[in-house]
Amino acid sequence: MSSFEFRLIKSCGVAAPRLGEMHTPRGVVHTPAFMPVATYGTVKTMTPEEVRGLGAQIILGNVYHLFLRPGVELIARLGGLGRFMNWSGPILTDSGGYQIFSLAPFRTITEEGVLFRSHLNGDRHFLTPEKVVELQEALEVDIMMCLDECPPYPCPEGEVRRATDLTYLWAKRSLAAWQQRDRALFAIVQGGMIPAWRQEAAQALRELDFPGYALGGLSVGEDKELTYAMIEATVPELPEDKPRYLMGMGLPEDLVEGVARGIDLFDCVVPTRNARNGLAYVSTGKVNLRNAPYAQDAMPLDENCRCYTCRHYSRAYLRHLFMSREILAYRLLTWHNLYYYLDLMARMREAIAKGLFASFREEFYNLRQ
Amino acid sequence: MSSFEFRLIKSCGVAAPRLGEMHTPRGVVHTPAFMPVATYGTVKTMTPEEVRGLGAQIILGNVYHLFLRPGVELIARLGGLGRFMNWSGPILTDSGGYQIFSLAPFRTITEEGVLFRSHLNGDRHFLTPEKVVELQEALEVDIMMCLDECPPYPCPEGEVRRATDLTYLWAKRSLAAWQQRDRALFAIVQGGMIPAWRQEAAQALRELDFPGYALGGLSVGEDKELTYAMIEATVPELPEDKPRYLMGMGLPEDLVEGVARGIDLFDCVVPTRNARNGLAYVSTGKVNLRNAPYAQDAMPLDENCRCYTCRHYSRAYLRHLFMSREILAYRLLTWHNLYYYLDLMARMREAIAKGLFASFREEFYNLRQ
Repeated sequence: MSSFEFRLIKSCGVAAPRLGEMHTPRGVVHTPAFMPVATYGTVKTMTPEEVRGLGAQIILGNVYHLFLRPGVELIARLGGLGRFMNWSGPILTDSGGYQIFSLAPFRTITEEGVLFRSHLNGDRHFLTPEKVVELQEALEVDIMMCLDECPPYPCPEGEVRRATDLTYLWAKRSLAAWQQRDRALFAIVQGGMIPAWRQEAAQALRELDFPGYALGGLSVGEDKELTYAMIEATVPELPEDKPRYLMGMGLPEDLVEGVARGIDLFDCVVPTRNARNGLAYVSTGKVNLRNAPYAQDAMPLDENCRCYTCRHYSRAYLRHLFMSREILAYRLLTWHNLYYYLDLMARMREAIAKGLFASFREEFYNLRQ
Repeated sequence: MSSFEFRLIKSCGVAAPRLGEMHTPRGVVHTPAFMPVATYGTVKTMTPEEVRGLGAQIILGNVYHLFLRPGVELIARLGGLGRFMNWSGPILTDSGGYQIFSLAPFRTITEEGVLFRSHLNGDRHFLTPEKVVELQEALEVDIMMCLDECPPYPCPEGEVRRATDLTYLWAKRSLAAWQQRDRALFAIVQGGMIPAWRQEAAQALRELDFPGYALGGLSVGEDKELTYAMIEATVPELPEDKPRYLMGMGLPEDLVEGVARGIDLFDCVVPTRNARNGLAYVSTGKVNLRNAPYAQDAMPLDENCRCYTCRHYSRAYLRHLFMSREILAYRLLTWHNLYYYLDLMARMREAIAKGLFASFREEFYNLRQ
């Protein structure tokens, strides 16, 4: 098994678009990359072969969810998460920090760890940074995330301070607990919406020399301008030769703006979740199949799209399936949205390689007018 | 467009297993055949390519459902049902008779036709045999069914008599209304659970010389022995050179018993609907994923199965998906069940060709012990 390695192929400057290759035990990921989300061991509605066929090189799993159901021990016994779910490529797992703070109906944080109740059945669980690394090693994933505390927004400054400090302390302990060094362990930068604290957190974590760094606690309700300002404050403080992962965000424009600011990795439930709500992302913006005029519309979702859905089905048919709550509706829309997202990333990588990212970005917005 | 034609390839006797080829405007169907059900213009959870890939040569649509949603006019304007749903092979549509009598919350039957309320929104509709032929011609399907009246079970004899006579009368009117003679129109034999009436109905309809004949009003709550007795009473009265279709039935053993009695065509929602309820049909019987022991089970659904699901996924994973209500669970189980059904039909055709149907049937039951 080869070790984790990030190779920077091309950079357009500090906090600017860049191209990279992330070598992981189970395959190479060309960055900037989008990771489809497989919360419970499946990218919702899709087979792994379909996800791979759409161009995904890495997917994201979730320790919090898999820990609760079906349990990490079972997955480990059946050969790890990749084998369990029939995905042979790289996997990154989120540590569960965000989920414990957003989903669990009850939690108590101490320096030692976090006590919480399951949102599924109310069972009590206690997780520590060490345990979370151990769980991810048992899942046999390629990239593990440190347990962090993700403060909400808005949030009293004292709370943000405490969460930022605790996240640093837990990162140190995660590093000490990390045994399987062929798998990567990424640190998470918190700091709320305070640029100086984010910079300070990035600098401190940088000292610990992690294989990669994530920006956490963003897109939690704040304005887009504030999110972008936090990215701009953080990225220059991160090492150039390590991948940068913007957690849990975003919309198509977030991907473009993230790449513009030097982000290498993205994940978000938006393309898959919104597909199941009848919303398709297209080159000109959005198509919401709940809108009645589509009932008679013989056009594909996006005339400029070459995906399976757009090559074979009309908006009228897709709306009919959606209104009839047919599972095929969720499949075909997920298929289209993931195609759109993954193609968007591929086109950005191509634009960066050709030195044409600025004009790509301009055209991206022009089409949406 | 070539016309409809049925070629009997091999017959083992009256009301005995037989092999045939049904030539339709959009392709050949090797019989005996199972038709996956596509109620609302989709075989639930599957793409048309997947259904075709599993070996299905013909699918079944439903006039009643498509008439109510999204409407036949829209489908016709978008190029017919096949084009609308991206299925290029043969399609048979049920006339809606069974649905009007089983789903509609209100109906009034006159000799002229049937007045009913939609089970979706209560709207009133009036359908006649002529209108039902016209709707199916507008859908551009390969095989159309006459509107019939399907009596429930048990049912007063007077009611059965009236329904049987009306079904005959409507078949005559359907024949007169049938314009697009390249598409086939099948008559439906009713007659309740009274062998003599079924024989009489079959003889009368046979006189009208339809391209094919269906056995309707079976599997409506009666014992299996009674169903088989009705099949045995009816089949010898049908012309040998026309396909015989046993409507809406069955379980795997029903397919075997139907073929044994000279049936050529089957449809049933069982493999697809039960898949969505966590039930898989396997060579040894059934696997119900709701059963807790499967949570730890590393085996595939069926060790003897070569389907995509069985080649890649454990029962533990499938149960996890099912308990988590993941759409992929419904897909993978539907995939397996349709594979099982279509493979069962292929193996029966092979056995008939080799003159080994009796031993096939014996082994089918032996495996289930």
